[in-house]
Amino acid sequence: MDALKEEIDKQQTLFNDLRAQKADAATLDEAKKRLADLKKQLGQSKAAAGVKDGGKKRERLLLKTAKGTRDYGPGEMFCREHIERIVRSVFTAYGGSCVDTPVFERKDILTGKYGEDSKLIFDLKDQGGEELALRYDHTVPLARYLAMMGGNNTHSKIYQLSKVYRRDNPVMSKGRMREFSQADFDIIGQWDTMIPDAEIISVICSVISKLDVGDFTIKLNNRKILDGIFEVCGVPEDKIRPISSAVDKLDKAPWSEVRKEMTEEKGLDGAVADRIWEYVQHKGGPSLLETLRADEKLMGNARAKEGVEEMGLLFKYLDAYKLVDKMSFDLSLARGLDYYTGVIYEAVCEASAPPGFTASNALASGSASALSSSTAPITGNTSTKKPKKAATDGEEDEVDESTVGVGSIAAGGRYDNLVGMFTAAAAGEGKKGLNMPCVGVAIGLDRIFSIVWPKWVEKGMRSKETMVYVMAAGDGLLVERIRLVQELREAGIKADFLMKNKPKLPAQFAAGERDEAPFAIILGESELKEGLVTVKEQAWEFVDGKKEKKKSSDKGTQVKRAELIDWIKSTKVFKDWDLGRLIVEASETQ
Amino acid sequence: MDALKEEIDKQQTLFNDLRAQKADAATLDEAKKRLADLKKQLGQSKAAAGVKDGGKKRERLLLKTAKGTRDYGPGEMFCREHIERIVRSVFTAYGGSCVDTPVFERKDILTGKYGEDSKLIFDLKDQGGEELALRYDHTVPLARYLAMMGGNNTHSKIYQLSKVYRRDNPVMSKGRMREFSQADFDIIGQWDTMIPDAEIISVICSVISKLDVGDFTIKLNNRKILDGIFEVCGVPEDKIRPISSAVDKLDKAPWSEVRKEMTEEKGLDGAVADRIWEYVQHKGGPSLLETLRADEKLMGNARAKEGVEEMGLLFKYLDAYKLVDKMSFDLSLARGLDYYTGVIYEAVCEASAPPGFTASNALASGSASALSSSTAPITGNTSTKKPKKAATDGEEDEVDESTVGVGSIAAGGRYDNLVGMFTAAAAGEGKKGLNMPCVGVAIGLDRIFSIVWPKWVEKGMRSKETMVYVMAAGDGLLVERIRLVQELREAGIKADFLMKNKPKLPAQFAAGERDEAPFAIILGESELKEGLVTVKEQAWEFVDGKKEKKKSSDKGTQVKRAELIDWIKSTKVFKDWDLGRLIVEASETQ
Repeated sequence: MDALKEEIDKQQTLFNDLRAQKADAATLDEAKKRLADLKKQLGQSKAAAGVKDGGKKRERLLLKTAKGTRDYGPGEMFCREHIERIVRSVFTAYGGSCVDTPVFERKDILTGKYGEDSKLIFDLKDQGGEELALRYDHTVPLARYLAMMGGNNTHSKIYQLSKVYRRDNPVMSKGRMREFSQADFDIIGQWDTMIPDAEIISVICSVISKLDVGDFTIKLNNRKILDGIFEVCGVPEDKIRPISSAVDKLDKAPWSEVRKEMTEEKGLDGAVADRIWEYVQHKGGPSLLETLRADEKLMGNARAKEGVEEMGLLFKYLDAYKLVDKMSFDLSLARGLDYYTGVIYEAVCEASAPPGFTASNALASGSASALSSSTAPITGNTSTKKPKKAATDGEEDEVDESTVGVGSIAAGGRYDNLVGMFTAAAAGEGKKGLNMPCVGVAIGLDRIFSIVWPKWVEKGMRSKETMVYVMAAGDGLLVERIRLVQELREAGIKADFLMKNKPKLPAQFAAGERDEAPFAIILGESELKEGLVTVKEQAWEFVDGKKEKKKSSDKGTQVKRAELIDWIKSTKVFKDWDLGRLIVEASETQ
Repeated sequence: MDALKEEIDKQQTLFNDLRAQKADAATLDEAKKRLADLKKQLGQSKAAAGVKDGGKKRERLLLKTAKGTRDYGPGEMFCREHIERIVRSVFTAYGGSCVDTPVFERKDILTGKYGEDSKLIFDLKDQGGEELALRYDHTVPLARYLAMMGGNNTHSKIYQLSKVYRRDNPVMSKGRMREFSQADFDIIGQWDTMIPDAEIISVICSVISKLDVGDFTIKLNNRKILDGIFEVCGVPEDKIRPISSAVDKLDKAPWSEVRKEMTEEKGLDGAVADRIWEYVQHKGGPSLLETLRADEKLMGNARAKEGVEEMGLLFKYLDAYKLVDKMSFDLSLARGLDYYTGVIYEAVCEASAPPGFTASNALASGSASALSSSTAPITGNTSTKKPKKAATDGEEDEVDESTVGVGSIAAGGRYDNLVGMFTAAAAGEGKKGLNMPCVGVAIGLDRIFSIVWPKWVEKGMRSKETMVYVMAAGDGLLVERIRLVQELREAGIKADFLMKNKPKLPAQFAAGERDEAPFAIILGESELKEGLVTVKEQAWEFVDGKKEKKKSSDKGTQVKRAELIDWIKSTKVFKDWDLGRLIVEASETQ
């Protein structure tokens, strides 16, 4: 290696000399190339020998989070907790009970549940004992839990709120991560057809309406109709799920690409593919049902007929929930997961949709006339990759992946056989599984966060709840500050103080302002002897996009030390915060 | 193998015949043994051949959670969420801001932080890309976060509340698991000595007092004193941490065992070990400081002197917090983790302590007379394995591991160098790290749960928040039920209904009773036409340890449909629930 280094030195000198002598370009290039080759050689031999010397840089610790994961700082967590609080309050308003499962499962619990995406499962290292993997979603662990409970689960509505893991390619800015939070709500058990399905869709709409994410649409479809269409079009039984996966890509890829996947990759007859295309372009409202009911060939298929009947019932119930105008019955919605058996849905809001999307665009109009045009299949060449202008018939633009927004913010469907699959597998071959139909939704909290958070920043939301900052003029009065802070905290008033013995007053004010505490309490020795303290209310405002403390000539109010707690609790500011109003208000007004 | 099966059949027939003929015992035994041997042979040849037939049983899915983990069902989660709500409310009352880090870290972030226990880290499988591991605690990820933030973190009080992972031997019933929840509160930055440390101890006391876990004690010590003692006793510098680890075991093992570990395993001179023993038996209150200050040899050690001064200041501040009588200054407290640099502490409550422990036993008495006796070192033979009766001097019994309770429910200390270690390692060799002293605590939520939950079961606590169950007499009135339920939910009243078209009234009452909903609303067609609904209040009571619906002759109240929401909101039951009082009350009274 030393010889190599020597040679490099020589070559470097030669090159420098040539350059100094202004040699012709070809000679210079030649010398330069030779130098680069030599350096590369040296690098390789160093790497092969694992030389310490070259490794110094590599020994430095890389201070970062794992790929596809991130920290949430105080302001971000304040916003996330606000989102989670809203989700929980809706879930419990609908009668949900919380269940929590471990972050990892025995590997065989997850195997065979996610189709092509199984490769995205995070496995744990074999350190002796069980084979384990991080959960990929909440649905499979819930089904495992229900299977273990057998007949003993008495809760028909269960929610889960925690993180799931996928070794996918992350797009952090859009909230697509390897670790992400999902809030699931599921309805379990044998109820009358479509009532639980309507409840779930209502849960989704309630959650989204209460969050500051703008207008939204629920795309609806039914696996029974879709599978019926495939059968009627002539898709062989064993190709139904792969072809369904291809259809699922229609929101991101143009028909030409999807058709190619169907015919070239998956060996489907081109004519069959084209017949599918005639169907899956349909989208609209309840009147799309009429179009389907009029299709005699499709109605001759038992699965499709059942699906159409289900959708009819679903729309009837959604009318009772006053939600029909939020729905877009979309025959191209297929969903990737294998375990769905009936109704499937996806929530898309404007902020999460591809550029150019507006809710009214994808929306099923309530009026029949709008519907009839939006449900007419489009033929002709739509297989161009370039986004085209939104058509007047309510079709979404076709966009390539790079122009897609954060994607759907919630999705789910009916999965009637998953729990039974577990109990059957546990009982052994030939045993019948438990009949436990389920329907549910997963709400993507990181995607919602990625929409809500920039608005919080824009509005300059607070990042903590501290109400009172206790200060002292003069000699520090540390013990007195501690005593008062403790009294306030015990009384339910969130309070803080500067953890210094004798801090200067301006330093204390600065600390209280950093927390944006609405009340500053100033202790003074002589005042305290008279049983008095000074309270100053503080407020902030937005000036030129920057948050500033409101200027005030208020010198503060003298309050009796003994009456301080009641005094604070009677203020409007305190009452508003105590009811959570300041947070809700700020996120609701814009 | 078929020959073997045939032979087994023959032998079985022979055995049956012999038994039918009432052959003598020896003959029967002989035949039985031969049969068993043959069956065993068959089993072995099947296993060797990997026969499908014999493998049927092994193919059955094991329906269970991973070792050391568990599901939390609805009732349990309702209790856990109650605990977490209390913890959060205390954390924010003290000015804490929430931070959330990913569940896994790059492996090198965790390496070298946990001493002997590093073997307990859960690694992720190498699936290409980074080497990853599940977080072992919240302290190291927080330090990594702070190091990444550099000077940009403006939050001095940070809390975290989520799960951590250790491949330890689980004891589920005591809340010792491989996946467990920790609530951490940390104070970051350069404040005046011991003020943040006192704040943290106050946080611990506030949290524990608000939970239904009984009386408790905070064991206190200081690594500087402990290390000073080791130096003075003659422990070589490189043996200080290992010897400290040995001392840490004194709450579970008798001195004889710990001494053996010091001398035989860790090569310490026996005389040095005995000098350590003279010190580490001391425990008491602030007056223990006098004993230490009077020890000239110890005070000649700079580290120990600094530690004693810190403890003096800490007790002064704890007096302002009115917490001195909860403290037990305990020189045998060492804590296992390497990164502590100053004050260390551990909270033990009666329910979590070994049998025979009472808080007043371990507690430093406030009176000086009690202290002087409790701080006198005990000499003589205390190295017996059998628990001895509690001594009057306030010593705890020595107990072996099997008789220990759930252990400490909270623990922590000061770690002044951890953040700096990260920034230095990231900056490269020879670079100085950020000076960012920290002090914090981790509260073990599963251990608290394992104490609180049995009490909830005993009290028959509810497991959900549903306030109103909407029912219909007669023809189902599904649409009317949906409309009313939706109105109630929108108004902030948690409501539910039976998801059937035309359910019988008793079935609806049964469902509402399963949820223990305090209000039943019954819709009737003719009543509705008059704009009226019937409301029945329902309550439950404990009869002979079983929860039962209170019998009532109440036929219900007719309320105007239009005034229903106001009517419900004006009831005492609703107001109590809305303020969370029913939960808090039930857990506070006992």
